[in-house]
Order: sequence, then C-alpha cells, then structure tokens
Amino acid sequence: MARIDDLRKIATRLRIHSLRMTTVAGSGHPTTCLSAADLAACLFFSEMRWNTKDPTDPASDEFVLSKGHAAPLLWAAYAEAGVIPLERLLDLRKITSDLEGHPTPRMPWVKAATGSLGQGLSVGAGMALAQRLDKSPARTFVLMGDGECAEGQVWEAAADAAAWKLRNLVAVVDVNRLGQSDPTMHQHDLAALARKFRAFGWDDITVDGHKIDKVLAALKLAGKKGKPTVILARTLKGKGVSFIEDKNGWHGKPLKADELAKALEEIGCLPDVDSRRFVHKPKPFPKKSVPAALDFPRTTYTEKTATRMAYGNALLSLGKVNPRVVAIDGDVKNSTYADKFFEAFPSRSFQSFIAEQNMAGVGMGLAAKGFIPFMATFAAFLTRAHDQIRMAAYSFSNLKVCGSHVGVSIGEDGPSQMGLEDLAMFRPIPGCVVLYPSDAVSSEACVAAAAARKGLCYIRTSRPATPILYPPGETFAIGGSKVLRKGEGDAVTVIAAGITVHEALKAFDALKKDGIGLRVIDAYSVEPLDTETILREVAATGGRAVVVEDHYAAGGLGEAVAQALAGRASLAHLCVRELPRSGKPDELLDRFGISAAHIVRAVKELAGR
Amino acid sequence: MARIDDLRKIATRLRIHSLRMTTVAGSGHPTTCLSAADLAACLFFSEMRWNTKDPTDPASDEFVLSKGHAAPLLWAAYAEAGVIPLERLLDLRKITSDLEGHPTPRMPWVKAATGSLGQGLSVGAGMALAQRLDKSPARTFVLMGDGECAEGQVWEAAADAAAWKLRNLVAVVDVNRLGQSDPTMHQHDLAALARKFRAFGWDDITVDGHKIDKVLAALKLAGKKGKPTVILARTLKGKGVSFIEDKNGWHGKPLKADELAKALEEIGCLPDVDSRRFVHKPKPFPKKSVPAALDFPRTTYTEKTATRMAYGNALLSLGKVNPRVVAIDGDVKNSTYADKFFEAFPSRSFQSFIAEQNMAGVGMGLAAKGFIPFMATFAAFLTRAHDQIRMAAYSFSNLKVCGSHVGVSIGEDGPSQMGLEDLAMFRPIPGCVVLYPSDAVSSEACVAAAAARKGLCYIRTSRPATPILYPPGETFAIGGSKVLRKGEGDAVTVIAAGITVHEALKAFDALKKDGIGLRVIDAYSVEPLDTETILREVAATGGRAVVVEDHYAAGGLGEAVAQALAGRASLAHLCVRELPRSGKPDELLDRFGISAAHIVRAVKELAGR
Repeated sequence: MARIDDLRKIATRLRIHSLRMTTVAGSGHPTTCLSAADLAACLFFSEMRWNTKDPTDPASDEFVLSKGHAAPLLWAAYAEAGVIPLERLLDLRKITSDLEGHPTPRMPWVKAATGSLGQGLSVGAGMALAQRLDKSPARTFVLMGDGECAEGQVWEAAADAAAWKLRNLVAVVDVNRLGQSDPTMHQHDLAALARKFRAFGWDDITVDGHKIDKVLAALKLAGKKGKPTVILARTLKGKGVSFIEDKNGWHGKPLKADELAKALEEIGCLPDVDSRRFVHKPKPFPKKSVPAALDFPRTTYTEKTATRMAYGNALLSLGKVNPRVVAIDGDVKNSTYADKFFEAFPSRSFQSFIAEQNMAGVGMGLAAKGFIPFMATFAAFLTRAHDQIRMAAYSFSNLKVCGSHVGVSIGEDGPSQMGLEDLAMFRPIPGCVVLYPSDAVSSEACVAAAAARKGLCYIRTSRPATPILYPPGETFAIGGSKVLRKGEGDAVTVIAAGITVHEALKAFDALKKDGIGLRVIDAYSVEPLDTETILREVAATGGRAVVVEDHYAAGGLGEAVAQALAGRASLAHLCVRELPRSGKPDELLDRFGISAAHIVRAVKELAGR
Repeated sequence: MARIDDLRKIATRLRIHSLRMTTVAGSGHPTTCLSAADLAACLFFSEMRWNTKDPTDPASDEFVLSKGHAAPLLWAAYAEAGVIPLERLLDLRKITSDLEGHPTPRMPWVKAATGSLGQGLSVGAGMALAQRLDKSPARTFVLMGDGECAEGQVWEAAADAAAWKLRNLVAVVDVNRLGQSDPTMHQHDLAALARKFRAFGWDDITVDGHKIDKVLAALKLAGKKGKPTVILARTLKGKGVSFIEDKNGWHGKPLKADELAKALEEIGCLPDVDSRRFVHKPKPFPKKSVPAALDFPRTTYTEKTATRMAYGNALLSLGKVNPRVVAIDGDVKNSTYADKFFEAFPSRSFQSFIAEQNMAGVGMGLAAKGFIPFMATFAAFLTRAHDQIRMAAYSFSNLKVCGSHVGVSIGEDGPSQMGLEDLAMFRPIPGCVVLYPSDAVSSEACVAAAAARKGLCYIRTSRPATPILYPPGETFAIGGSKVLRKGEGDAVTVIAAGITVHEALKAFDALKKDGIGLRVIDAYSVEPLDTETILREVAATGGRAVVVEDHYAAGGLGEAVAQALAGRASLAHLCVRELPRSGKPDELLDRFGISAAHIVRAVKELAGR
C-alpha cells in the first residue's frame, strides 16, 4: 500500500513531468494537469486495480480522462506506471509520437478519444454497463473538469447512470474554478455542483483535492450507497507553482523555459519514488470469448416493408446469434423498430430516453469494452450527437448507428423530423461506412455488413413501406452497388438509393413507353461508393447520368457521384434544394423534385429527347 | 378577466379542435395536446399579455412551444384567439397549409421552429434576454414536455438562465408521464423534476395541470423570487377521453373516425364561449427602431494576422456602429477573439460557458426578437450544436455563426480540436451562406457581408496568422471569388480557400520556376459558390483544375466544385483523407496532402509535366 507520502511524491513527479512536457512541446495545458495531479496519483497508484501489462484485461478498472486537455498528466501517469518509457514523455505532441495533445486510442491504454468536453461521463457509463454485463467486479473512473459540467451531456449521462444504478461508476471532478476564458459558473461553490449531482440521483462527496488522505477516504466510500458516486474535489489550477496557481489567463499556456526553471525551483527536484510499486493489480477475471457469429438467418419478405422495419427484424436476428450485440434507444424504438430487440433482450437494451448525446457516448463505452452497440434514432436527431459521433471516429469505435425517417418521404411530420443532412454528416468521416438500403432484403443485409465490419458504420433507413426488390439470398458487399435495369442503347444512367430507387424504377417504366432506355443503379453503399460500376455504366450510357436522392444537395450521394465522375460525365442532380414542409410523402417527393416525373424530365433533357 | 369556468370551456374547445384536426389529417399527436390543453388555456387566455394583431409587437409576451409535436394545440389556441380562422384548422399538415406538423415560422406567430425536443428553453432564454435588453416589461413562456427534460440542452439552458437571472422567463412543464415508446424516467415523480430545476437555480412550483385555478395561481407567482420559474404541472396524456387517457401506446396516433366520435361523445359538444374576449392585450411599449448600419470602418492590416483575430476586430467594429449586434460565447472567446466584443459591450455579451447547444438556442431567441447574434466557438465544437443550427434554418433565423480553428492547420492540439466537417455541416442547409476568408482583410469583409445578409451565415476562420493578400478597400460579395494569379497559357486552375490559398500561392511561385503557369482562385464564398468564374477560369486552363482544402473529402469545397464542374473538367481533389493527429501545422499540411508541395505534384500530373 502506498503511504500518503509516497502518493504526494508521485503527484509531484506528475506535476514536474506535465510542466516539462508542455514546455518542450511549446503548447499544451500544464495548469489543468497541476490541479488534477493529486487526484491522478490517488487513482492510478492507490484506488484503481489495473493490469499494466494488458490494456484489454477485463479485470482492470477503466479510466476515462474526460478533461482531455490534461493529456500530459495522463501520459505522465502511464509513464510512472511503467506502461510507456519516461523518456518518451518529451515527445508530447510531436507528429511522430502517439502522445497526442488530447488522448486518442493511438495510445492503446486510451479507449475513447477525449478533448471535446463533457463526453467522458457517457463513455464511462457505457464502460460501467459493459462491466456489469460481463459480471466483472471492475469499476470505471472518470476524471472530469468543473468547466465541462456546463455541457448538457454531463446531465444526460448523470440521469441515465442513476437510472441504471451504476454503482461501479465513479466521477471525480477537478473543481479548479477556472475555465478557458473566464472563471466557471460556480467557481469554488462546490455545494452548487453537489446539489446538481444529488438532484440527478448521485451520491456526492466533497473534498479538498490536494489532500491525499481526504481524496483516498472519499474514493473508499464510492459506490457504497448503491449509486454512481461523484467526488467533487476542490483544487487550484496551476497548484504548486506560485505565479500560475489559481490565476486566470493561464489556460492552455505552457511555461517558457525561464518560467519552467522558476517553477521547478519552487517544486523542487523529482522526488525519488518508484511509482510502479504502487500500481494495484486486479484480481484475475476470465476474459470473455467473443463469438464470431455476425451473420444471421434472414427474414423472408413478400410484401412491401419499410427498411426501418427490416432493420428491426435484422437487429433481433443478430441479437439471437451474438450475445455481444447490444442496443441503445432515445425513446423512439417503436419508430426505428429497435423495440423488437428491446423486447427480446431487455438486459442488453438500454433506454437513454431523449438524450442522443449520451446514447452515442454510452455506445462508445460499450464498444470500447468489446460489445457491438447499435444505436438508433431518427436521422434528423443524430445531428444532436454529431460531436459524439465525430469523437467516436477518433476513438476508432465499433459503434453502429442507424438513422431512420430520412428525407421528405416521411411526410406530414414536417422538416424538423426529416433527416436531410445525415449523409453529409457521416460521409466526411474517414473510414466510416455509409449504407442506404432500398428494400427490406438489402436492409437486413446492411445490418449484417455493418456488424461484420469493424469500425463506425451508418445505416440510413426510410419510413414508408417499399416493394421488395431483391431475392432472399442476395448479397450486398460494402462498396458494392446493384445494376437493376440495363439494356442495349440505354440513354442515361440513373443512380439512386433508398426511396428514390423506387422512383427511378417508375421512371424506367414510364420512359420505356417512350422508347428511352434507362440504366438504374441502386447505390446502397454510399460510402465507399462503387465508383467502378458507376463509371462503367455511365460511360455505357454516353456519359449521361442522373443522381436522385432524398437528401439536401451538398454532401450526399450526388456530390459523391460528382466527385467520382469528375470530368467524365454530364450530371443532373435531383435532390431537396429548399427547406421542406409538411405534406403527404408522394406530394413532397414531387414538390421537392425527386419523384419519378422529375427523373423522367431530367433524363429526357440529358438525352436531348 | 376570464373566470375559471370560461377557461375550462376554452380548454375543452382546444381539446376538441386538436382531436378533430389530427383525425382529419390522419396523423399527429392528439394525446399530448390533451394533456396540455388546460395549461394552454391558462396561458393564452389569462396569464399572457399579447397583441393578436401584430406578432412583432415588443410589448407582447412571447410563447415557445418546446414540445413541438403539440402543434395542433398551438394552432387551436391561435384560432381561438382569432389569429387564424377556425376553419383553417382542418388544413393541418396539408402541403397547402402553413399549419405544419410541428411549428415553423411559416406561421408568423411562431418565431422559432420546434419539434426537435429540448430546444425551446434555450430559445426562450434568448427571447427573455432580448426583452431585458429592450427594457420591455414582456415575459417569455415556454411550454415543455417532461420527456424532453432528458435532453442535456434543457439543463444547459436552465443553468445559464439562472446565472443570467432571467426572472422574466417562465417554463411550464406538461408532466404527462408518458414518452413516445416508454414512460418517462421520472413519470409522475414531480419532486424529482423539481429537485433538478431547484438545483439548477430555478424557482419551482408544482401543480395539478388540470386544475385551472391552481395553474393560474402558480403563474401569478412566477418570477416573484427574482429567478426564472418552472411550473411543473402534473397532467394526464389524453386527458378527457377515457380510452386514451394516461395510456401508453397512444403517442403520435390520431383517433380513427369512429374513435373520434366516441371521444366527442365523452367530451360533449364545443362549449359556447368567445375565447377572443379573454386575450389580454399588453400595455403599449414603443417599438425599437433598428439602425441600418451593418458596415463598419475596417482595420488596416500590414502584418500577418489570423483570420480569427480579424473576425474579432470586425465584430468589435460592427458592435460600435450597430447596437442590435450581440455576441455569445462558449468559453473560448480568447481563442475566437470574440473577447474584444465582450470587453467593449458587456451588456450585449453572453457567456454560455461550455454549452454550445444552449449558445445556439439563445442565439435563435435573440435573433427572433430582432437582434443580430454572432456566436463563435471552435468549428469542431459547432458539431455539438448541429441539431440547433438545423432548427435555426427551419426558423429562418438571422443567426451568425463563426467557427474558428479549422482543419489540420491548428497543429498540436490534435484531431478533437480540428474543424474538418464544418463545411459539410453548413453547406447542405438551403440558403445558408458559407464564407471562408483567407486573410484579415477578407475576414473583416466576411463579417460585414454576414451582418448585411438576412439569414443564417457561417464564417470559417483559421488559427495561424496568414499574410495579407488584399488591399484595405477590397470588396467581397457573397457568391464571389477572387482570381489571384492569372497568365496566358496557364496550365491548371487551383481553387483554394482559407489557409490553402497561401499554399496555392506558394505552389504558383514554385511552378513558375518550372515554367508552368497556374491560375489561383480564392473561393472565399463556398456557398453560394462562384460557379461562373470557376467554370470560366477552369475552361481557360484546358479544363484542368485542382481543389485544395483543409477539410475532409466529403461535403466541402472539393465536392462543391465537383458539382459545379461536373462533366466539364478533370479534377484533382486535395483534402484530408485520414483521421489526423497532433503535429506542427506545416508538418500536418504536408502529411495530410494539402501543402504547396502536394499542389505542385497534382498540377504537374494534371498538366502531364
């Protein structure tokens, strides 16, 4: 057991490392490391049980640095624990180093990227859920800043964690009073923060965050009341260095060389202590073997079915073959049809209520612990979790996202409920797979493809029931497409996806009567796009192409195709170009220019007929 | 004064209208209208002071229907007040009607679109701030659902409204216990909700939401404690109709014709009362005349200056000439340089702390009341407010948004801080102007252009200091571009914006030595794009173009140009194609393929040299 004195020495070492690293890097946030150094020492070298040899050991407690700008402190703690060589600390923020400015899983001990504030508690809640699902005795610790408690996501996570009774979740808030540009709302009024957490169902303990013995005592009490626990630690930003301590204007500023010298004079030299001795190993806990089954028996469809309904069926079937699949809902599961999974697997289903940000963060936490989380809501409301999805990408997360109710084809509910920017949200993310099925068969196949592909995947589903286009066994590879109509001398290629595939097929029939041949491609894999097929088919129709999509003009299928075809084809792009409104689905498809009639007109224009 | 009995009759009328409208429309949310009908009757026909002749009267109290799916109730209340003809109610959700499924300002009494839940309180806070700025005695009422209290944005708004001491803000929560797919987290435990609001600094009053006298009494107490007030009203979803009252599974379901008949039998016929008599007019309050000055004296720049710094200077200058300009910050004002405005105009500056969702909602509220709000944060963190920005578009809001620290050029802080998807977020929004200045002169001009253009505008600024490219008086029209280099026989046109304009100019110099002429376009107006100039210049360089941008591949300048040039040019697109990392700005520009060296290579390849 570490004595108070050892931990104090370790904290001093963490402070010295943090100061040096940031001065050498010439940027970074040393003062926020200094406020949290004692807390980190207590966590990493006394309270936490963790295996320094294996970052994936399920017996280990998890740690999330929600205040990601304190990354130097995290790297210092890992170096002190012997996980990374001490000398590598001075590579902080170099392009050649994985010790980035904010934590990313390039360093394998980091399981979720942080740096966009207020997200760590959700991730921690997801990890704590995972530990409970795995029946692991391990706990999850989240180190937060007081400034980030202004983020609503913190309160989404707090409410859900309390509802889920996550007694194995411990938040430690480094209440250092100072934000980036201003003092925080509550400064050192810790009682104000305590009232909030208490009102949200947490156990709360307030301590002096620089008194090692008090912090240790508080940590010992965590979870004892059967609730998630927050330790509110009163600290000073820049603690230990007189000229920066508790001073505004020092956020995100490294010390200059002479300032560092002065600071180190005050702090003294690196205390002599072997921190590694104080890392507490966890009791061994068996690793779960992850079953390989990622495909599942498909439903046979004969009647018109909405792709969202098929998503629900597929998720249920997947859940039956793979116990690592879990689902998260934002109180719309009867619309996304995730409710089928919820009913069958209540213990693997998590209701995040109407809190999309937390839903995504919890998904990241579950994915970080080896689960395969499917989160679903209306595509429009995924914009609420855009920042979290962005951070999921930087976390190399295996999160699966389904957005239902896309486009004007939802009808009467009106624009606020229409997902018209979701492709533009997911397509930019490097490596993110974007699938957009047009019928129930392809929808089920997209779920299977997403499950099988490691990494962030997005599935776009529609509200209306659509005819079945494909036979039961049809395969849908990521990066593929389907040529649905093809004839000699076709005039134009129409590239569609989802609901507009059906409009394109209607246009095919209409044009056939006029003797105009149409090639129709179902570009169900929006990202990666099947550029090869599209190029080939468009070339075969004289370089004439029409793209039609139930999405705004920018960032969707149209621009993806425009990129792919640049310089090689004349392109007409049918899409939603105005702010839409309420109306019947068919009326809206026509009003906003993406119905069969509009395709017919565009084809005739391109073909000069 | 309306007697209890009159209000009860009005509430019954509102219930009957809501039921009929949704049955005729064949969709909608009648049960959520029924739970809130008594509350709406008390608000619109007793407590609120408002002018039914003029939706812009600053003397009127404002009303925000945060639970936007109760739109039929809102339309019914306006019809009862004589604002819209009663017979038009049956046009609900028709493509020909402005009575949409969720409220939008197509109906001029609606000042902010709602329907994405949890946003109304922020909008209301913005309106209440506006009323205070205008020294108006009017108040703002926000009708919320209990389900939407799960959204973190509610707590961001609650915290900020308390910090801003908005005693003129009143939230009424229709606690009807049932969400869409599940009961809410707290169901009828109103004390749990009360604890939360109280902990967030609000005065709270709990009442039976179907007892008119109790509701009126509660409303009379609102604001008396100098704080924002929440009235937590215990209600029953579907109140008044036995077979839907307090029953799960009735969210978003209209009654069928026979069910309606049965319901109307229970409720009785339309009570005979002239609701219009009970609308309380406000005391007259003079309208502010809005000054026209939207341009301002520009700063003269001689040395390298960051575009974000010029944004700060311009905002300050604009603030000096226009008292309706206000600023909102998410605790990064010393990075976006909005701090210059904050220091000069503290009463027109609002610190939303680290709560981007609320920042956007408050901006919408201020804009709805005739202010010109500029909100600024790191572009990366605007993703946190994507849903709110989307709703600002549906609100036809005059919100101005600045995103700083874009792209890999920010350097060492790493990917979580880099705005690489912001163009893909703003470009899809129909009518949204997207400006991306490359130097301080154009940055100031972009602020002036955004101020002068009514509607949503986005300005993208960079972190590093960049050379001055333009003379002080240069004008930058929305939809324009600048041809910076042009010569006879130029081989390729390079289209750049922001930081990459400078890389393109370096490439120009390098290629000049090799005898290769380059045409360089500064496409500062990303949306609308100057298609005409780009087409002309690219045609003049043999249809060869390179686009280079500090943004991910999809949804940005590259795809905008690909769309514009479709079929008319060979395009090389240089952009960030991988998840980036920490490093020095120049190293990162080169590592991720958007430096001068990469432009040189792309040009040579295209030109076959």
